[in-house]
Amino acid sequence: SWSALDSPLVGRSASVLQRMDHRSVSSVTIPPPACMLRPLEVPMRYLFGPGPSNVPPRVLASGSRPIIGHLHPEMYEIMNDIKKGIQYAFQTENNMTISMSGSGHAAMECAVFNVVEPGESVLVAVNGIWGERVAEIAIEKHKPVLFFLTHGESSAGLCHPVDGIGDICRKHNCLFLVDTVASLGAAPIFMDKQKIDILYTGSQKALNAPPGTAPISFNDRACYKMFNRKTKPISYLFDMTHLSNYWGCDGNTVRAYHHTGPVSGFFALRESLAILAEKGLEESWRKHKEVSAYLYKGLEDLGLKLFIPDRDLRLPSVTTIAIPEGYDWREMLGYIMKHHQMEMTGGLGPSIGMVMRIGLMGYNCEKTNADKALHALADALKNCKKSKA
Amino acid sequence: SWSALDSPLVGRSASVLQRMDHRSVSSVTIPPPACMLRPLEVPMRYLFGPGPSNVPPRVLASGSRPIIGHLHPEMYEIMNDIKKGIQYAFQTENNMTISMSGSGHAAMECAVFNVVEPGESVLVAVNGIWGERVAEIAIEKHKPVLFFLTHGESSAGLCHPVDGIGDICRKHNCLFLVDTVASLGAAPIFMDKQKIDILYTGSQKALNAPPGTAPISFNDRACYKMFNRKTKPISYLFDMTHLSNYWGCDGNTVRAYHHTGPVSGFFALRESLAILAEKGLEESWRKHKEVSAYLYKGLEDLGLKLFIPDRDLRLPSVTTIAIPEGYDWREMLGYIMKHHQMEMTGGLGPSIGMVMRIGLMGYNCEKTNADKALHALADALKNCKKSKA
Repeated sequence: SWSALDSPLVGRSASVLQRMDHRSVSSVTIPPPACMLRPLEVPMRYLFGPGPSNVPPRVLASGSRPIIGHLHPEMYEIMNDIKKGIQYAFQTENNMTISMSGSGHAAMECAVFNVVEPGESVLVAVNGIWGERVAEIAIEKHKPVLFFLTHGESSAGLCHPVDGIGDICRKHNCLFLVDTVASLGAAPIFMDKQKIDILYTGSQKALNAPPGTAPISFNDRACYKMFNRKTKPISYLFDMTHLSNYWGCDGNTVRAYHHTGPVSGFFALRESLAILAEKGLEESWRKHKEVSAYLYKGLEDLGLKLFIPDRDLRLPSVTTIAIPEGYDWREMLGYIMKHHQMEMTGGLGPSIGMVMRIGLMGYNCEKTNADKALHALADALKNCKKSKA
Repeated sequence: SWSALDSPLVGRSASVLQRMDHRSVSSVTIPPPACMLRPLEVPMRYLFGPGPSNVPPRVLASGSRPIIGHLHPEMYEIMNDIKKGIQYAFQTENNMTISMSGSGHAAMECAVFNVVEPGESVLVAVNGIWGERVAEIAIEKHKPVLFFLTHGESSAGLCHPVDGIGDICRKHNCLFLVDTVASLGAAPIFMDKQKIDILYTGSQKALNAPPGTAPISFNDRACYKMFNRKTKPISYLFDMTHLSNYWGCDGNTVRAYHHTGPVSGFFALRESLAILAEKGLEESWRKHKEVSAYLYKGLEDLGLKLFIPDRDLRLPSVTTIAIPEGYDWREMLGYIMKHHQMEMTGGLGPSIGMVMRIGLMGYNCEKTNADKALHALADALKNCKKSKA
């Protein structure tokens, strides 16, 4: 047993090993790398792509506050604030509301690892718009325990309608998981009213915190499934049994050590959620709608074609434009970065080569920034036109 | 197929759904939480526990630099710096050297998920000191594919000898995984010379970065095992096929999007590794040895008993003392926090109720800090003595 550690036996065998340790390997052979003797260089950039977006000074400053311990009572208070801030942002009363110590992808794996057991099916909506009828047919056919939908599909610049799908999932005893990484704060979502069982987002889009934390919430249906499973989740790090204790959601007054949360990242997330609470969700949604409409108009004035024809389906945080004829999208993006210190991006996955993406999210969501983006695009259109072969 | 997205059909069905979306759920019912309308409060603390430790101003400042995109060329340069900084800190030439976007625990799961397949065994050293002979017997008996040893066992304050064990693992075709979360930079480790196949650490101990990143390195033996497996790792997030591409370790010139790394966390990690490179490993090891010896003397002068009797086995970053008779350890720690704004901690797991732990790591590793810790302990010894019942 572990208590043998303090026995005289340990002392003896250890002395032998300790001498061995000093036998052969006591000198450094790999020198300090030259690159590390140069200063850190970080250029200033307008981050007008699909995220991360620029972080406002208040959030940056909070992330550079001297840290405290991950298990200090003051840290628990900050985590409680975060929990309440997420409940507001998600429009949910779910007790089981936390932040992952990781990216949005960590939240996605957390959701799947906890509610799905070996042998069970997951249905993922990937082909364009899933209507209620399509969803019902697919759920009947595949009998998934989990249906996964992305609310803000940033690769296409599309905001997927959510209403009605939660009802179908309940009818078929399936959990409804929604990814709002690219949409939260920019387009309305109502976790409770829309009967979403698990919802997550990322910190680095409209919330304007640095990447590295990811709010997630589970309702009672999701909790029932994940806390009544027969097998343990494969990942200890993502096991909600432990994470719910770490976040004070399990009713236990003692929080045990599980992993060391990103203390500075939580400071920043707390402030980004506070900014959203101060501004208000309705105002944030209104602003994204207003600025994106202003951007659409400016893009059309430049002769550019919006990729999503139906205006009501466009994602207000990330706008996709079809690549104009006679231009190489990589050249245009490179030109804009070089001459305007501004990130716009190409497509992602299936939309590569089809679109360019402009994100104006949260702190970046201002008409003056739309003007900057339009100015940069106009300049690229003027200077990047390919000569006819 | 996905290209159906742009079809007129999508436009039609979408309009119906969009109208539905506006049908019932368009108003916010959960108000902004009152706690979020208060300022962020973060007290100043001496973090003299087993970690996280205080972050120096230079590292804090780097983490609050305006961010850039996770896929920008300048970010790749910073990641390349980090890679070289880790190679130096680990004393390895392994190409497959990266940082996890997560805590040390994420690095541990990454190691296990990638090199172990279903049905294979892992042997974990948990019972005190593992001599070469004990290790060989256990490896012969259990035939593990992976042997896991913690170099700096911070729960006991013990630094485990490593020499010789790598040879045994090779003889038995087993990979040797070493956790140096609590020891890196404080006690010598030589990944290549000590034949360690996988090594990882955390950012928040002697490296003095905020928690949230975790260096890890795999040698050729580990790479051969993980890239020749029959099944895919269960976690996409931790799959080294993707992570090695993200970190430019797979020979591919194009880095694909996998997850969004903690940009600010990488800035901070880069600076913490730069500080170690500037100071030098030997000096860092010497300093930890010197300051811990100074602390031992001061503790003994206070009449306290060191928990690890063999001085050569003590972990230089975290010192454990036996709880003095006639004292309640929780009361002492609470007193020290209240009156000295200083964190020391109790035990962890099996050492709870047996020890108190004092960590002086990296930036905190100074005789002046040892003096502060000793002064606080002396004060607690004076004021927390229990009256005899």
